[in-house]
Amino acid sequence: MLTDGLPSQVTIREVGPREGVQILQTIIPTESKLKIIQALVRSGIKEIEVASFVRPDRVPTMADVDALVAGLPRHSDVDFTALYLNQKGFLRAEGSGVLKNRGWLYTSPSESFLKANSNVSLNDSLAAVSSWIELFNQHGKVLHGLMVSAAFGCGYEGRIESAQVELVVRRFIDECRKAGADLEEVCLADTIGVANPRSVRATVRALRQLGVPTISLHLHNTWGLAAANVYAGLLEGVSLFESSVGGMGGCPFTPGASGNVATEDVVYLCHSMGITTGIDLKNLCEAAELAESLTGSILPSEVYQAWKHSGRIVPFPVEKSGGRD
Amino acid sequence: MLTDGLPSQVTIREVGPREGVQILQTIIPTESKLKIIQALVRSGIKEIEVASFVRPDRVPTMADVDALVAGLPRHSDVDFTALYLNQKGFLRAEGSGVLKNRGWLYTSPSESFLKANSNVSLNDSLAAVSSWIELFNQHGKVLHGLMVSAAFGCGYEGRIESAQVELVVRRFIDECRKAGADLEEVCLADTIGVANPRSVRATVRALRQLGVPTISLHLHNTWGLAAANVYAGLLEGVSLFESSVGGMGGCPFTPGASGNVATEDVVYLCHSMGITTGIDLKNLCEAAELAESLTGSILPSEVYQAWKHSGRIVPFPVEKSGGRD
Repeated sequence: MLTDGLPSQVTIREVGPREGVQILQTIIPTESKLKIIQALVRSGIKEIEVASFVRPDRVPTMADVDALVAGLPRHSDVDFTALYLNQKGFLRAEGSGVLKNRGWLYTSPSESFLKANSNVSLNDSLAAVSSWIELFNQHGKVLHGLMVSAAFGCGYEGRIESAQVELVVRRFIDECRKAGADLEEVCLADTIGVANPRSVRATVRALRQLGVPTISLHLHNTWGLAAANVYAGLLEGVSLFESSVGGMGGCPFTPGASGNVATEDVVYLCHSMGITTGIDLKNLCEAAELAESLTGSILPSEVYQAWKHSGRIVPFPVEKSGGRD
Repeated sequence: MLTDGLPSQVTIREVGPREGVQILQTIIPTESKLKIIQALVRSGIKEIEVASFVRPDRVPTMADVDALVAGLPRHSDVDFTALYLNQKGFLRAEGSGVLKNRGWLYTSPSESFLKANSNVSLNDSLAAVSSWIELFNQHGKVLHGLMVSAAFGCGYEGRIESAQVELVVRRFIDECRKAGADLEEVCLADTIGVANPRSVRATVRALRQLGVPTISLHLHNTWGLAAANVYAGLLEGVSLFESSVGGMGGCPFTPGASGNVATEDVVYLCHSMGITTGIDLKNLCEAAELAESLTGSILPSEVYQAWKHSGRIVPFPVEKSGGRD
């Protein structure tokens, strides 16, 4: 830990190849996705969410998931993951061979969001916990995390208070324990970019009391607050962030959702304060450049754009990474 | 003060009409500048820097300063200000009638920046303090502030440590006292956008010890950290920010300097956390839209762009401004 309570090290879970690709109107060829993933691996990222096992008729660009997984680089030190929202999706993901030993549950404090995104109610998702854990065990997996979508608000129900999130997570923790399992991680997703630094601090603090070892953040920059929200998370000791190369991303079922926080911007913020990430920012910007070229969309990442226009990766040539003060 | 130490109220000093216009390659007609200023007044901003009294051969778009000042709306409750870097500039500003009763001094902890920006050394600028104060008094003004340019680093000398800024400001405080005056405000300018939340906290804290009543921040978003830096400032009790409508801006003498923090983004960040600004964000976005149209440049403000594309000014229609949690 650094002197002012910031973590000394941050881990990035890259979600661009899944969430960034998912929002695009066009279908990205498998080969292009694999090139982006290879570039991300070169940058030093160790966790990459590569696809979602959802209905191809709803998200046509994910129809190639099996071919994509088959083409993934075989790096023993990179953890490739995939999203699934129901047990059918899990079984497809499992069949593809992408899943390692960790199982994830999904929920949201917004009933409307849950309904729209995965067609279940909160009670349904709670009632399904034991069957999920059983399914994980059948396939040699252990329960790892709970993804909390729309954890700070959604377009249907407006702002979500920290107490509401705490209540939902507490109920999941209880259901997991009844089934003999413990949550290792809760990921708070600001799906439509409505978190602010105060709500980030309040919700992370509320969850800390529940004793979950890792609280991670998945942030969006819809209203320009992502960097401030990352910093608010860091101040609360959060050291695992989900972000998207170049800032690609959004959620196709949520109106107005755009712009995952850019991986380059999180990494630069960390490096500027002397927090290590293990990621080479120049290689990461090259991955963003490739993503921009292969997806045909201008990517909003501030650091990537500054690099593209200035040719520099840090403001002062004397410092390759890390900060002082 | 709010529960977590944040100020309950923030003041914006709008610098777009000066710094935002100054960076443009084209000359903006006086009438267009006045329309932007009128729109900013409608948004509720109470301090607006409208022009710089610099050499018109170096900054041609400032050749119309006298006409601009003559055309300013006569609002008793809006404080129009102007920038001057030397006594000749001050006398021109004074002659235009724009200056109220406050006098400003300018410096930088970077000798190279001072030399490039105002052609003096640090010792020169310190030695001139007494003659500045005398000049202010001759013209019915009292010393008010010290603008510290490149307070976190510059393209010539790299990173600037907080101790270096503290030393320079301390010397100015001493010189002012010798001349019988006290500094009321020190404005720390991150002229090329290289501050990070840790350096903002360290430098604001270092200056707090010097007993200057108001420490303000002038931030740039060059590397995407402006929102995080504003939040870091708020956590240190900073409640006065210089920002630019739409995020227009930069400094023509500093390579790589672009993108003042957008006023909309600072205001939105404040409102999202329940901090009041007295500014109507919708009217402010309309001012940004006008600035975008009259200057012919796409403005980088996140909130303005989100408003332009979504037609909404806050994510949840139920909340006009202010936040909870």
